Amino acid sequence: MAKHFADRLIEAVQKKGNPICVGLDPRLDQIPSFIKEAALEGKDRSPTAAAADSIIAFNKGIIDAVADIVPVVKPQIAFYEIFGHEGVRAYEETIKYSQKKGLIVIADAKRNDIGSTAAAYAQAFLGEVEMFSGEDEVVTPIFGADSITLNAYLGIDGIKPFIEESRKYDTGMFILVKTSNPSSGDLQDLELKEADSVYNMMGHLVDSWGADDLGESGYSCVGAVVGATYPSQAKELRRVMPRSIFLVPGYGAQGGGAADVKPCFNKDGLGAVVNSSRGIIFAYQKLDGFEEKQFGEAARQACINMREDLATVL
Amino acid sequence: MAKHFADRLIEAVQKKGNPICVGLDPRLDQIPSFIKEAALEGKDRSPTAAAADSIIAFNKGIIDAVADIVPVVKPQIAFYEIFGHEGVRAYEETIKYSQKKGLIVIADAKRNDIGSTAAAYAQAFLGEVEMFSGEDEVVTPIFGADSITLNAYLGIDGIKPFIEESRKYDTGMFILVKTSNPSSGDLQDLELKEADSVYNMMGHLVDSWGADDLGESGYSCVGAVVGATYPSQAKELRRVMPRSIFLVPGYGAQGGGAADVKPCFNKDGLGAVVNSSRGIIFAYQKLDGFEEKQFGEAARQACINMREDLATVL
Repeated sequence: MAKHFADRLIEAVQKKGNPICVGLDPRLDQIPSFIKEAALEGKDRSPTAAAADSIIAFNKGIIDAVADIVPVVKPQIAFYEIFGHEGVRAYEETIKYSQKKGLIVIADAKRNDIGSTAAAYAQAFLGEVEMFSGEDEVVTPIFGADSITLNAYLGIDGIKPFIEESRKYDTGMFILVKTSNPSSGDLQDLELKEADSVYNMMGHLVDSWGADDLGESGYSCVGAVVGATYPSQAKELRRVMPRSIFLVPGYGAQGGGAADVKPCFNKDGLGAVVNSSRGIIFAYQKLDGFEEKQFGEAARQACINMREDLATVL
Repeated sequence: MAKHFADRLIEAVQKKGNPICVGLDPRLDQIPSFIKEAALEGKDRSPTAAAADSIIAFNKGIIDAVADIVPVVKPQIAFYEIFGHEGVRAYEETIKYSQKKGLIVIADAKRNDIGSTAAAYAQAFLGEVEMFSGEDEVVTPIFGADSITLNAYLGIDGIKPFIEESRKYDTGMFILVKTSNPSSGDLQDLELKEADSVYNMMGHLVDSWGADDLGESGYSCVGAVVGATYPSQAKELRRVMPRSIFLVPGYGAQGGGAADVKPCFNKDGLGAVVNSSRGIIFAYQKLDGFEEKQFGEAARQACINMREDLATVL
C-alpha cells in the first residue's frame, strides 16, 4: 500500500464501475449444508473449528464469484466472534483472501475506546503490532484490514489512534453518524440547543477530524456510516461532510432501494459505497434457478442485479 | 447461574467487603520478561501464540493473587485482540479461569450493533451458541462472561438482544453513559433542546431499559459506565439511574481518587464497582519492595491499598 485509502477506494469503484460493498456476514444456519459436512469430514475437530472452516470455505466461494465485479467487501466481525478464537481465525483468513483477490476490506467492528486501548485496536486492525520471537522483536500485521468501522461516542480520543495508523499505513475508517436501524433516532435524532441534531453534530465532527488527511481525490481517510433507510438525513449529511466517503448500510434486506441511496452520493456519482449482505451472499435461497451448490453464481447474479438497480440513479 | 446478575454482583461486593474491579489489560511490554521467556521455551510457536501464552500465565498469576480479596475482574478485549485469534484464545481462558476462582467477569468489549448482528454478540458473550458436531447440534457458551460493556449510540435495537440473553442466563451489561476520557464531552456533554445533556438523556434511557429486570437487591441487569474523572456529572447520574450499578473507570492511573468516586455510590454504600487496571496489575513496577517475580504479591498489595483508600469515603 502506498496510496491514500480514499484514492484506492475511489479508483476501485471507478475500475469496477459500481459502488457495491458485499457484506460477508456468514450466518452458519444459512451456509449450504454440503460445506458444513465437508468441514467436519474425516477430522476430529471441535465444533467451533468446524464452524470456522465452514465460514472460510463459504466466504472463499463468494469472493471467487464476485471479486472481478465488485470493489469492496465488509466482513461483520460479530458473525466470526460468535465462534470464539476459531471464528476470529476465519476472520483473519477472510480478510487475507479478499485482499489477495484484489478487494478492499472494511472490517465492520465498530470499535470504540480511548488512549492506549484505542491504540491497541488501531494497530491490530489498521497497522502492525510489535511482538517477540526468541531474542528478536517482530512487527507484523494482525488483521491487516484496509479500513474499519468506528463508534465515536467517546469523542476524538477514540478516533485519533486510528487516524495515526491510517497515515502510516494508508488505511481508513468509517464513523457511525446516522445508522440504518429503526431505533437509531433514540440518541442520534435528539435536537441540540446550539446546533441541529446529534447526528448532524457527529457529521460536523467527522468532517473536521478528516480535514487534514485528504487524498488526491479530495476525499478523506475519515468516512461516515449513513444508513440508506433515512434519505432526507443522508441528503443533509452529504452537505455537512462533502469530503467523507459514506458507507451505506440498509440497502436490500433492510428496506432501502436505489432511490434511497442516491442522496449519499456527490454530484460526480462518487463518494459512497453501498453495502448489501444477506441479499447477496445468501441469494441462492431467494433467486430462481440456483441450487445450493451454486451459491457463488447466485451471489454474482445478485451483484449484477444490484449494479443495474444502482445504475438507474447514478 | 441461577441468581440475577445484579444480586450476584452486590453479594460479591458485600462478601469481599470492597467494590474493586481489577482491569486485566495485559500490555505485552509490561509483562515480566521471565514469563515471556517461558512462553517461548522449547516450543516452535508463532509469536502471536507465545504472546497469548504469556498473557495467560501473567493473568493467572494476578488472579491467583487477588481472587480472595476482590469481587470483580474486567478484561479489556483490545489487549487480547491485538494478537488476533491467539489473543482471543487467551481472552477465553482468562474468563474461564477468573470464574473458576470465584470472580465475576465484565467483558470490556463495548460492542454495538443491531438486529441479528447484536444478537450474535449477545449470544457469544452472555449466552450460548448453536453449532453442529457431526449429526448433532451442540449448544455451548463461547466467551461465557457474566456481563459486557456496551455502547448505545444505535439506540435500544443494539441493547435488546443483550437484555434477552441476560434474562435467560442471569447475565448483565454496562452501557457507556459518561466516559472518563478528556474528550468524552465532544458528544456526551452537548446540551439538548428538550432535556439536559446527551449523557443525561443516555442515563434516562439506561434507567428505562433496565426497569423491567430488577433483582431482589433492587438493582437492574442494565448498568452504566460513569467515569471517576467527572464527579459532578456522576452525582447527577446517580439520581437519574438509582437502579443501575455503575462501572467506574478512571480511578488511579487516569487521575480519579476516592473522593471522586464517592458520588457514584448510593447512600447504602453500594451500587458501584470501581475499576483500576495498570495501577494494580503492573504494581510491581511502581510499589517499593517488589521484584519482577513478585508481580502477583504487588498486585495484591495494590488492591489492599485501594481498598483502604476507598474505605475512607464509603
